[in-house]
Amino acid sequence: MPRYKLTIEYDGTPYKGWQKQENGASVQAAIEAACLQFVNQPVELSVAGRTDAGVHAKGQVAHVDFPISRDPFNIREGLNKILLPHPIAIINAEEVSPDFHARLSAKKRHYLYRIINRDARPTLDATRGWHVFYKLDIKAMNEAAEHLIGHHDFSSFRASECQARSPMKTLDSLTIKRRKKDPTQVMIKTSAKSFLHHHVRNIVGTLMLVGAGKWKPEQVKEALDAKTRTAGGPMAPAHGLYLMKVEY
Amino acid sequence: MPRYKLTIEYDGTPYKGWQKQENGASVQAAIEAACLQFVNQPVELSVAGRTDAGVHAKGQVAHVDFPISRDPFNIREGLNKILLPHPIAIINAEEVSPDFHARLSAKKRHYLYRIINRDARPTLDATRGWHVFYKLDIKAMNEAAEHLIGHHDFSSFRASECQARSPMKTLDSLTIKRRKKDPTQVMIKTSAKSFLHHHVRNIVGTLMLVGAGKWKPEQVKEALDAKTRTAGGPMAPAHGLYLMKVEY
Repeated sequence: MPRYKLTIEYDGTPYKGWQKQENGASVQAAIEAACLQFVNQPVELSVAGRTDAGVHAKGQVAHVDFPISRDPFNIREGLNKILLPHPIAIINAEEVSPDFHARLSAKKRHYLYRIINRDARPTLDATRGWHVFYKLDIKAMNEAAEHLIGHHDFSSFRASECQARSPMKTLDSLTIKRRKKDPTQVMIKTSAKSFLHHHVRNIVGTLMLVGAGKWKPEQVKEALDAKTRTAGGPMAPAHGLYLMKVEY
Repeated sequence: MPRYKLTIEYDGTPYKGWQKQENGASVQAAIEAACLQFVNQPVELSVAGRTDAGVHAKGQVAHVDFPISRDPFNIREGLNKILLPHPIAIINAEEVSPDFHARLSAKKRHYLYRIINRDARPTLDATRGWHVFYKLDIKAMNEAAEHLIGHHDFSSFRASECQARSPMKTLDSLTIKRRKKDPTQVMIKTSAKSFLHHHVRNIVGTLMLVGAGKWKPEQVKEALDAKTRTAGGPMAPAHGLYLMKVEY
């Protein structure tokens, strides 16, 4: 059974998230249904990052075993045709060795969180970024971010329903930038081998408090040290988050 | 009667265009309905650029006369609340002198045309850019663009139903760039005091032929010189076009 690695882009807006659900549409169910039609046999996808409802992906990765060998070009084109009108597209398909695993082999995951920082509510980007009307202090947000980079107990930024065995994670990078060409766009980028459930959204919600002047940067360190979710800031909404890339 | 200048952003997808229609939703009708509710009196908007169905705006400008003076902050916030759930927002409102005219006082209009240049169909940007899968030659497109910059008879790039008195226009700039951070994004920017009907979309459709290697850059000069619409290339679709800014 040949194994294929699929790189996937999707608009998370209409889905309950990546994972198959009893009720409601999911990205996984849509792609598995397309695969069934493509190879005439049920298959199951394994994914790098199980994104929540409303979260987008530009570079999600999943692997799948097909009963027979198929040309990667035909897999991409064929699945993309069957997937219509779903806002899901296979960006790339390639054959990989049977010991490749989309989740377990991942070395680094890159997320982007997009804030639309202006007075008027967004239109074109209403489901593509978080609307924050406080004028954000980017310097203060980066100062606060310094406390979170590295190996820490992230209990204060972890969903209560998080299933990870340990709250210890290593944040490789966390940067906040305002776009020069369009200052209403604030881009928060972060990468790590793996993240906890709601990890990025809880960090962004906390950094927003710093940017808005409600918290001092040092308070983020205090929140981290408290090692309890109630010490962290609020969770940022799903529709600003993008899984950008998974490295292997 | 105080006059107000409104700077407007909208997602053109659900509208028949800017202008009021007998049948179908328009941006103008939506904002005029909001104004009626806001000042309890029917008012009419004058606009800088009457965008077609599906065309977007990040910086459209219109002016309106209100029966009584209102605070610009309240105009913006009030109209934006009433406009919901329309994907239309007033980005800025300011009082202007009675001789300001959104269309007639405009000194320069800036348009962006966005091409998504990759194999897989777009998902997040399905209604936000033109999907072109030919690998575009940006250098050749810029060479072709050089022939169009300046004062010319643009009959070959003008809609048959265009109502302008003359086909003579002056293109101040026309540049094509591939984004370094995301090479799938090709951005075509152009500015002029004013444009003909379908002017930008006809230019982009023609430049696409050059980028795809189907036309040589010099053929754009030949098409321009022919001064007839049949000599120009095809019209690019509406959903890649954005009215970015109007200068006064």
